[in-house]
Order: sequence, then structure tokens, then C-alpha cells
Amino acid sequence: MSDIGVTFKKNQDFSEWYVEVVLKAGLADYAPVKGCMIIREDAYAIWEKIQEILNKKIKATGHRNVYFPMFIPEALLTKEAEHFAGFTPEVAWITMGGNTPLEEKLAVRPTSETVMYATFSKWIRSWRDLPLKINQWCNIVRWETKATRLFLRTREFLWQEGHTAHATSEEAEAEVMYALNEYKDIMENYLAIPVLVGTKSDSEKFAGALYTTALESIMPDGKALQMGTSHNLGQNFGKVFEVKFIGEDKMDHYVWQTSWGITTRLIGAMVMVHGDDKGLIIPPKVAPVQVVIVPIPFKGAEPEAIAAKAKEISETMKAKGYNVILDGRDEYTPGWKFNQWELKGVPIRIELGPRDLKQGQVVMVRRDTGQKTPVKEADIPATTEHLLQEIQDNLFAKAKTILQEKTTAVKTYEEFKQIICDKGGFIKATWCGSPDCEAKIKDETGATIRVRPFQKEEPTANCVHCGQKAVETVYFARSY
Amino acid sequence: MSDIGVTFKKNQDFSEWYVEVVLKAGLADYAPVKGCMIIREDAYAIWEKIQEILNKKIKATGHRNVYFPMFIPEALLTKEAEHFAGFTPEVAWITMGGNTPLEEKLAVRPTSETVMYATFSKWIRSWRDLPLKINQWCNIVRWETKATRLFLRTREFLWQEGHTAHATSEEAEAEVMYALNEYKDIMENYLAIPVLVGTKSDSEKFAGALYTTALESIMPDGKALQMGTSHNLGQNFGKVFEVKFIGEDKMDHYVWQTSWGITTRLIGAMVMVHGDDKGLIIPPKVAPVQVVIVPIPFKGAEPEAIAAKAKEISETMKAKGYNVILDGRDEYTPGWKFNQWELKGVPIRIELGPRDLKQGQVVMVRRDTGQKTPVKEADIPATTEHLLQEIQDNLFAKAKTILQEKTTAVKTYEEFKQIICDKGGFIKATWCGSPDCEAKIKDETGATIRVRPFQKEEPTANCVHCGQKAVETVYFARSY
Repeated sequence: MSDIGVTFKKNQDFSEWYVEVVLKAGLADYAPVKGCMIIREDAYAIWEKIQEILNKKIKATGHRNVYFPMFIPEALLTKEAEHFAGFTPEVAWITMGGNTPLEEKLAVRPTSETVMYATFSKWIRSWRDLPLKINQWCNIVRWETKATRLFLRTREFLWQEGHTAHATSEEAEAEVMYALNEYKDIMENYLAIPVLVGTKSDSEKFAGALYTTALESIMPDGKALQMGTSHNLGQNFGKVFEVKFIGEDKMDHYVWQTSWGITTRLIGAMVMVHGDDKGLIIPPKVAPVQVVIVPIPFKGAEPEAIAAKAKEISETMKAKGYNVILDGRDEYTPGWKFNQWELKGVPIRIELGPRDLKQGQVVMVRRDTGQKTPVKEADIPATTEHLLQEIQDNLFAKAKTILQEKTTAVKTYEEFKQIICDKGGFIKATWCGSPDCEAKIKDETGATIRVRPFQKEEPTANCVHCGQKAVETVYFARSY
Repeated sequence: MSDIGVTFKKNQDFSEWYVEVVLKAGLADYAPVKGCMIIREDAYAIWEKIQEILNKKIKATGHRNVYFPMFIPEALLTKEAEHFAGFTPEVAWITMGGNTPLEEKLAVRPTSETVMYATFSKWIRSWRDLPLKINQWCNIVRWETKATRLFLRTREFLWQEGHTAHATSEEAEAEVMYALNEYKDIMENYLAIPVLVGTKSDSEKFAGALYTTALESIMPDGKALQMGTSHNLGQNFGKVFEVKFIGEDKMDHYVWQTSWGITTRLIGAMVMVHGDDKGLIIPPKVAPVQVVIVPIPFKGAEPEAIAAKAKEISETMKAKGYNVILDGRDEYTPGWKFNQWELKGVPIRIELGPRDLKQGQVVMVRRDTGQKTPVKEADIPATTEHLLQEIQDNLFAKAKTILQEKTTAVKTYEEFKQIICDKGGFIKATWCGSPDCEAKIKDETGATIRVRPFQKEEPTANCVHCGQKAVETVYFARSY
């Protein structure tokens, strides 16, 4: 039991609970190298699901996948000064190849703008070559010095980075919003995690960008998590890397660029938002296993008949396209199996005992509510479809309620500080727009501006910090 | 024209022809870092196709994908002495994180046995945990000092590495053959490249393996290319990394392990084997675009009607699941488009001109033979299906003929040396089994033993080199 039982309580020791669930459910493991992690079978299957969903979206809109080298020569990485300054403290460097010191050390990509755009300048010559819309799925290295955390902050992680070049500023702006909206769809409608969207303040934007848009969610411990970003790079990199095209007007122009990414961090968010004291709860739309069937053999009853029926149900469900596991292992008890599959967050469990067999039914158990329903055999597929949707909706609704509960509009700085200490979460407050105020708030409370909403609300009060005229209402939070 | 025309001849300047085709067809590009490459859109799409095919196979047989860290601490990599000795000359080392020298330098994975098996020892405790069958798709770094070559030898490449652990030697042996056979299926039935299979000699086996099986093909220049390998690791790594399990007999046992991989090199093989003086020829089953439709508007004719019909055909074909591109660009002539799509190796071109429109037909052109056939509109889907299969079969048949032509059975060492100089290819010869003879042949001719066939042929002569009694008949070749 101790192998699979979750001993920490989500409400009491959130941080320990998180690590325990991730490890015991087998999503990840610590690696023999500090600060890195092993992404295990179920977590990788969820990542593949995210890949499949996003690939389908972006390929349908003319983006194509590519692969650029992981190594970036120092001279290239340093070419855009602001960009380099932003990444330099966390770059891992290759200095030796075999037993030979390299002439120029090589950065392991912390992101690929520089290595890609040095090549864009070769690929793009005319307006006919635009828009250029590519994406790559790869590993990324950022040499974190802060404490690392499975999925949320590791020195190596997996991500996707979209990079596009356009003839006009308007097209680039539309692309930034395109990526953001597709990300929102994945987060809300697949991972069942509601997000706030908006732009970052200048101090929080991507190093080298014109502006950064982001998706932010709130975790049960009250800390915000950046779920994804989509950057408008303007012509900044284009000018540095000489990415120019001859327009239909026969004149030279610099391209307008965007880049956008989501990472394996999303899996950590999913664990934190939906899990409970029994373990994971995986939203049905991304679940590697949607239904587990557990036969309950009884002494004296007909174990073969139960096994045969369980197999029949399993085959029927698989034929209908569900991801089903039939757990017919003899060496574990049904109770042990229930615990294990609950730990692993499988949305629906189907129990089949001797009495069920006699009555031509099964018992279907929801992972999210624990609710048990006897279901006639013929109704299993329809009930499954219905239940999976209900679980998906319920997880999102619950997460949305939490997001709302953890969002507080404040009028005074006293209130701001009080809320940060008491419950955390998003704090909606007015801001004068000064980086100075922003920095002081960060120093004094640990909270940063997470997003500035696209739909501006007219501030009804002065700046929450300095009392000067406010220019907008923004969301602050402490964050991961 | 010079942008897309292939200027080298495959027969005359094979090596230059290869590079020109790869670059101009847009499969790859040189990167701003020496010895590395950019895998471009079409090549990456072929890689995704290979991923899809192999994933389907291995998942159906209980393998699951995972992701292990790319960094391997020096102490871990050196733990299995033979393995480390095999890889150490080509390891890239991370020595700095940010501005701080690392306490222990980290290898960028040249392969993942060590980092994985250090963890297997944690995951595997009992026979219930076996077999463990995992796979990962990732980047690999080997710091080549020889001249690099797009797809065939680069310092970073993409691959898949399967790693399994079993309770018995028999199961491990079966797994080695399972992977080998699935690879053979992909190479022959998808990439249309015939291969020889067999084991490697001890001097050519994977560093640390009990034995290595391999798939080898011959390129048009007469050099062999290793297409994939599947290793039986025996209990060697298990003993070093303490990967033990308690058997059903309650006793401790070391696991039996396998590892197997294929890489992006396969794309280079595909180019070399099938391409011609017009550019690529991509086997239909892995082609990112299977059919390109080129409308041929004529002055005075109805361009709108042609465009509308082309679109209709395109939609019909897409609905039937074909990968179709309708090239309706106004800024290029039909002739220019023909050249471009031939360069890119699209298996079928559909031409639609005013006369075709009037007659309710199109002209379908095969990329492999250039053969043109008028086809009634209603017959397009059926003809497409038929032609794609014919092209696939034809490419394989042609490649098989070349393999046969380039395989020579020799009786004497004089003949051996003559063939190596004259035409290269596989040389089938008898061998005494001595590593010493093998080494001398390599020194004197540059040829190595590529495979020792599974089905042993009784040697009808003595060793081709030393004249002592031969123990088997093997295939030699110079190789990439």
C-alpha cells in the first residue's frame, strides 16, 4: 500500500503532495543529473496528445515543422544584445568536443530565435517567400539556479516553438493572437485549465520582443503559473539578422516576426489543478487511459466467465476508439487495483463482479466524484461517452470556480498586501503604468504583473501603489 | 532556373549531386554551427511519417515512449568501460552553466544506455515489473571529426532509441529480432530500400553489447550504408548498473536487455537510392505531398473555369485522404512549376489545360518514369491509388536490382580487391572468423564486414584472405 498511497494532503502540504503524486503516479522521476527529470510513460503520452492537437491546428493553417541545431555559437547568441542579456545567466555551454577544446564555445539552445533567424535571412528574399511559418518540437536548456521542480522548472524541458515572418505588422499581430487563441483552446478545452490572457508589462516581456502576450493560470496554492507565451518580435530581430525582402513595391523591407511556445510544464499544471488526495485526475480528452476495467473474481464464482465478459467489453470499447485497459492481473487484488488506477487518474473505472455478470451489468465509477452507477452492458459505450464529457466539463467548471475564488479586486495597497499574505491568487488592481511602481510592488510583496488584459477596463481608482493617476487595471500575483 | 535546376549528374558526380539535390529540394540546409544541419519542412514531414509508422508498431506491442535527460554525468558514462571507450572520442561536454564552471562535466548523450539503466535499477524490482519496454525520440550528439555530410553524418541528429529489459535471454533475443523485422518493414515497404540483415562481427558491434544485428543497404556509389541496428546487450549493463529482479523463483536475477535505433540518416538513404538528375523521387508511402495539381491557363481560354475545376479535383482528392497540393500561383509558369515539383520528388503531377477541361480529363504524370496518361475526371482517384502503388513497387524493384547488381560473390582475394576498386558494392566472401584477417582486409581495401547473414551458407571455399578454413560467408563493403 505505501508504494501507491498518497500520504500528503493537497490542502495541507501542497508542495509535498505535488511531488508525491507526480512520482507515485509514475508521471516523472528524478534523473541521475541534478535539476533534470525523466518524463515517464503516462506523462509523455499526455505530451504526445498535446503535440497531436497542436500539430493538427497549426498544420491546417500552413505552419510546418522543422528541426534546427541545438548548438548556437556564442557570437550568434550575443548578436541581439537585449536577448542575450536576458538569457546569458542560464545558458549551458559546450566547451569540449571529444578531448579537444572548442575554438568558440557553443550554447545549448535556451530558445532558437538567433539560430533560426540567421538562416531566415538566407531563405527570405522576396514577398513571395512570405509568410514563413515554421515550428519545432525540441528540448530546451536553461541552467536554473533556483530550486528546480518536476515539470515546472527543470534545467532541460521539452517545448514547441513557433517562429513566423510576415510582410506586414498587421499580419504579425494577427499571428500572435492566432497562437494565443489556439493555446487557450488547448488549455481550457483539453487540459480543463481556465486561463487569463493579456500582454506582459515591459519588465516581464520576452528578451528582444516588441511585446509579449501570455496565458496565466492560478494554482491551488495561490501562485500563478505562466502557461504559454506568444511574442510579437516586431522588426527587432529582422534588423539585427538582416531578414529583408523585396516587396511587391520593389523596395527592401525588414520582416515582422513572431515566436510562441508551450512546454511540458503544462503537465505539472494539470496535476496541480485537478489532482486530489487519492492522486491524479486526468481530463478525459488528454488521458492516456480513459477507462480501466477491473474484473472482480470471487471464490466459488466463475472467474473465467467474468474474465471473458471483461475482455468482450474491453474489445467493444477499443473498437469504438476509447483508450481502455483491462487489468486482469492475478497477482493484485481488486482493491489494490482501484487504488492504483485512482492514483494514475484514469477518468472511469468499470467494475465487473459475479453479481454484475448475472445481471448483465457493470458498475461505472467516476474518478472525479467517486460516483458509482450500475450500467446495463448495452449502455456502456453511450454512458462512457456521456460520462467522459461530464468529467471533462466538471473539471473545467471546478477549476474555473477556483480561479474566480482566487481572484480578488483590491482598492488599496493595504488590502493588496493583506490578500497576498492571506490567500494569494490573482489581485486585480489599478496601475499607473510606471515600471518603478511595478518594481516596488515586486520588492515589497513578491507579486508581479501577470497579465494586462486585452479588454481594457477604465480604472475606477488611482494606482494601487503610488496613488497617481492609473492608466489600466491589471492582474498581479506571486508566481512559479 | 538555376535556383531549382540540378546541375550535377547522379552518375558522374554522385557526391555533389547528392548535396545539390538535398539543398535545392529544400530537405536540409547548412546551419550556422559547424557539422550540424537544419532539417527542413519536407524532410521533417518524412521523419514524422517514419515516427508515425514506428510508433504505431511499437505501441501495439506494448512499448511506451518516454523522455530521459540529455545530460549524462561523466561518472555515469564511464561506468561501463567498453561502452565509454567506444564513445569517448566523440562526446561533447558541458563544462559551464551560466558563468559558473560545473563541478562534474556533463556529456551530451551519444546514446542513452547509461542514463536509462541507472534508473532501471530503481524501477525494476520483481518479475512483475518485466518486461520493461520503452522508447524515446530525441536528438543525439556525436562529435564527428571526419567530414560531415547532410543526413548521413552530422554532429547532431535525430533518432529513436528503444530500450527493453527482460526476465530471460530468450525474450531479449526475440525482442532484438522484433525490432530488426519492424525496421526492415519500414525500410523496404515504406522507404522502398532493400536491405541485408544479419549480425555484426565483434569488431563492429555496439560498444558494450553481447552482439549487434544490423540492416545494411548499398548506395548507388557502391558504398554501404548502415540503416539501423538492434543490439542484444545480454546482462552486461545489468551487472554494471545493478538492474536486478526477484524472479518467480524468489531468487535475484540480472535482467537481459536490448536497445535498437534508427535515425534521420534514413532520409539521406532515400535521396541517394531513388533520386535522379531532376531531383528527388519520394516513395509515395512517405511522401509529404503525393499529388500536385498544376492548372495550365491559356490566353484566350477560361482561366477561371480551369482554376475552379482544379480546385474541385483537389478537394475530392483531399477528401479521399491523399496529400494534395494545388499549385495555383500566378507568379510562376507551368513549366517552372513542373521543374520545382519534380525537384521535390512529388510522385504524381496532374496537369489541367483548356483542352483537358473541354474533354473532361486531366493528364497524370509519373515522377519515376515520366510517363503521361490522360485520365477521365471520374477515374482520377482510382488511377491515383493505382499509380501510387505502382510507383512504390517500381522504386523498390529498381533499388532491388541495383542491390543485386552491386553484390558480387568472389572466390579470391585478388578478385575481392579488383571488385572493390572497380565497382564497390557488397562483396560476398568466405571468412575464417579471425578478427585479424578482418582487420587486414580493412587496412588493405577499406572494406569491413557489413553483415553476417542469419541463415548461414556453408562456405564452399577457404577464407578469402588467409586461405585457412572458412567458418562462414559474409558481406564486405566500404561504407559511409
